[in-house]
Amino acid sequence: MFAPVYLDHNATTPIDPRVLERMRPWLSEQFGNASSRHEYGRAARRAIDEAREQVAAAVGAHSTEIVFTSGGSEANNLFIKGAAAWYRPGIVAVSAIEHPCVMRPAEQLARHGWTLRRIGVGAEGRVQAGDYSAVLAEKPVLVSVMAANNETGVLQDVASLAPEARKAGAVFHTDAVQAFGKIPIDFRALNAAGVYALTLSAHKIGGPKGAGALVMDKRLELEPLIAGGGHERGLRSGTENVAAIVGFGAACEFAAERLAVTQRQLSDLRGALEDGLLRMGAMLFGSGALRLPNTTYFSLPNIDGETLVGQLDRAGYAVASGAACSSANPEPSHVLRAMGIEPGLARGAVRVSLGAGNNDKHVQGFLDTLRETVAKLHGMTALVA
Amino acid sequence: MFAPVYLDHNATTPIDPRVLERMRPWLSEQFGNASSRHEYGRAARRAIDEAREQVAAAVGAHSTEIVFTSGGSEANNLFIKGAAAWYRPGIVAVSAIEHPCVMRPAEQLARHGWTLRRIGVGAEGRVQAGDYSAVLAEKPVLVSVMAANNETGVLQDVASLAPEARKAGAVFHTDAVQAFGKIPIDFRALNAAGVYALTLSAHKIGGPKGAGALVMDKRLELEPLIAGGGHERGLRSGTENVAAIVGFGAACEFAAERLAVTQRQLSDLRGALEDGLLRMGAMLFGSGALRLPNTTYFSLPNIDGETLVGQLDRAGYAVASGAACSSANPEPSHVLRAMGIEPGLARGAVRVSLGAGNNDKHVQGFLDTLRETVAKLHGMTALVA
Repeated sequence: MFAPVYLDHNATTPIDPRVLERMRPWLSEQFGNASSRHEYGRAARRAIDEAREQVAAAVGAHSTEIVFTSGGSEANNLFIKGAAAWYRPGIVAVSAIEHPCVMRPAEQLARHGWTLRRIGVGAEGRVQAGDYSAVLAEKPVLVSVMAANNETGVLQDVASLAPEARKAGAVFHTDAVQAFGKIPIDFRALNAAGVYALTLSAHKIGGPKGAGALVMDKRLELEPLIAGGGHERGLRSGTENVAAIVGFGAACEFAAERLAVTQRQLSDLRGALEDGLLRMGAMLFGSGALRLPNTTYFSLPNIDGETLVGQLDRAGYAVASGAACSSANPEPSHVLRAMGIEPGLARGAVRVSLGAGNNDKHVQGFLDTLRETVAKLHGMTALVA
Repeated sequence: MFAPVYLDHNATTPIDPRVLERMRPWLSEQFGNASSRHEYGRAARRAIDEAREQVAAAVGAHSTEIVFTSGGSEANNLFIKGAAAWYRPGIVAVSAIEHPCVMRPAEQLARHGWTLRRIGVGAEGRVQAGDYSAVLAEKPVLVSVMAANNETGVLQDVASLAPEARKAGAVFHTDAVQAFGKIPIDFRALNAAGVYALTLSAHKIGGPKGAGALVMDKRLELEPLIAGGGHERGLRSGTENVAAIVGFGAACEFAAERLAVTQRQLSDLRGALEDGLLRMGAMLFGSGALRLPNTTYFSLPNIDGETLVGQLDRAGYAVASGAACSSANPEPSHVLRAMGIEPGLARGAVRVSLGAGNNDKHVQGFLDTLRETVAKLHGMTALVA
């Protein structure tokens, strides 16, 4: 297989080989159903219990606050729809830049009697204080604001937003899928500030696809999305994906260990990348705000993002043009639209998201290749014009 | 690890080593997000497309009729709640012996304005014709009857039940999780008879945990349980678990190849097992009905099922006392209750479910161990009495 340099870690990450090593027995001789009462089942149950402790430890939660799901999308849907089921229809408020797996379930509620409010963001992609207060004044039932945006990497000050939501009587949730593993997350502190639940995913932090969690205050009542045998304290039924959960636990352990180093290394690499991009005349989205240390979202004048990403892929660099999860959709990013970026510039958007395996050579190689590719594309445009 | 002889294949199966071999690249160097537009993403997308063809081929469906989920529980919930969302609340009718992951979502509907009807079964565990007709006369919106029961292995004549449901204007679904891989399933024929959707799971047929499917008539409208990036034609969002889906496809391919042989071998083994059990005075549940070739559900006079399963486990044989997925619940099986089995006998129920790795030695060894264990338990009872 032709293997481009991978610079798309916000879409997904390679499984850390140490994580895969821990998963291996659960994909072969340790194959039991964790609900079974024999040795195969008990072994699987112990493995899940251990993983639950590891996930909890990585975010400062108690293991009883972890609800395992098949991933981040399921956990976000579980919060939005599961919490809504316990209330009379009211207002559900989400930031205008939420991932589709928060936005779409909120829209589903809106088709079933709820009112959806999208909280506006400013030009740097941060929730606008005035808009937030105005929405809270309407007394929403549920509020969801992501910890870090998947496209721009821009952070929201969840610890300040949550207390206001609590004062307004709302149940506050944060999608921490992109933040987790890149910046510290402390559920105990966030919970004290009024965050009732937060969402995690394994495959963004060197774990496998197929595992995620809703970390939740146990006073929160949720109707399960997947009801059945009563797994996960009745909040998420279905035979546990033992190997994926074990991998999630291991990935949490390793992510927590290397967090400080990762933050510094990625932020140094990203600095070099952005210096180069700025020298090429790139516009960097959200760069005036606090951001994840690994994410750069940029646009070059008169260059189409989709085309550029295709050319870079062929030249050996894997990056993203929009959020990977919604890239079946060719419209310009809803995140950039919400930030008021004009459509021409938004259509040029390219995301580079660095990860554990990247080094200075990758960044310099990417910048060189980008320069050549852009020159070629400008040449082609000239020919077409 | 102490490894008892595994006789609990209805709970879960070991991953076929050939299946794991096919999964391996997708757990390491082929780690892309299938929505990404670069080579890593395209490779993942191709792998999912191929798996979709394999799953479709194994049940005589078209690949566009496959909706991948995280497993059977999710697929059953997707049908029950996803289809219900398109209708005004009415009647949802399910057989009294459905798996909890059909029963519980139907009960959820009942808490949101729907009326739940449980269709009764006879002493052999087959849907009662009179009860079925009476329920259909009430014009249910949704009907779900499982193809084969997980505890007894008893088959329902879905191909005859579905046309009646269609005549009554109902949308008919069948949970085929236990039937699949053990008896032939032909979605094309079933769909022609009025089956709108059926549920499959990978980990019951030598595939991994974490993958399942709803096979569905595309005229069926469903609201997604997990909404978001629009994966699976908008019916199930979330980053695809590529490795699990690839494993599911491979498991379908191998299951289809060996189906005829599996059926004959398991049914021969099961014959030897049941001969031995009958000689010990066992009551065999549902044995007067057509059953899966691998499943035996029995009770021995004055022996508690839970206790027996514990003793057998220590003596080297892994079997189940109730349905694994609900075995956190110590009440006697709802399936046996629905069949009118008296509670004392139901509490003695033990399930043996054979699979690809089992042979005559396992069955003879199990019978010998069972005889010794029962003698020991009777001795202990005598001492206590």
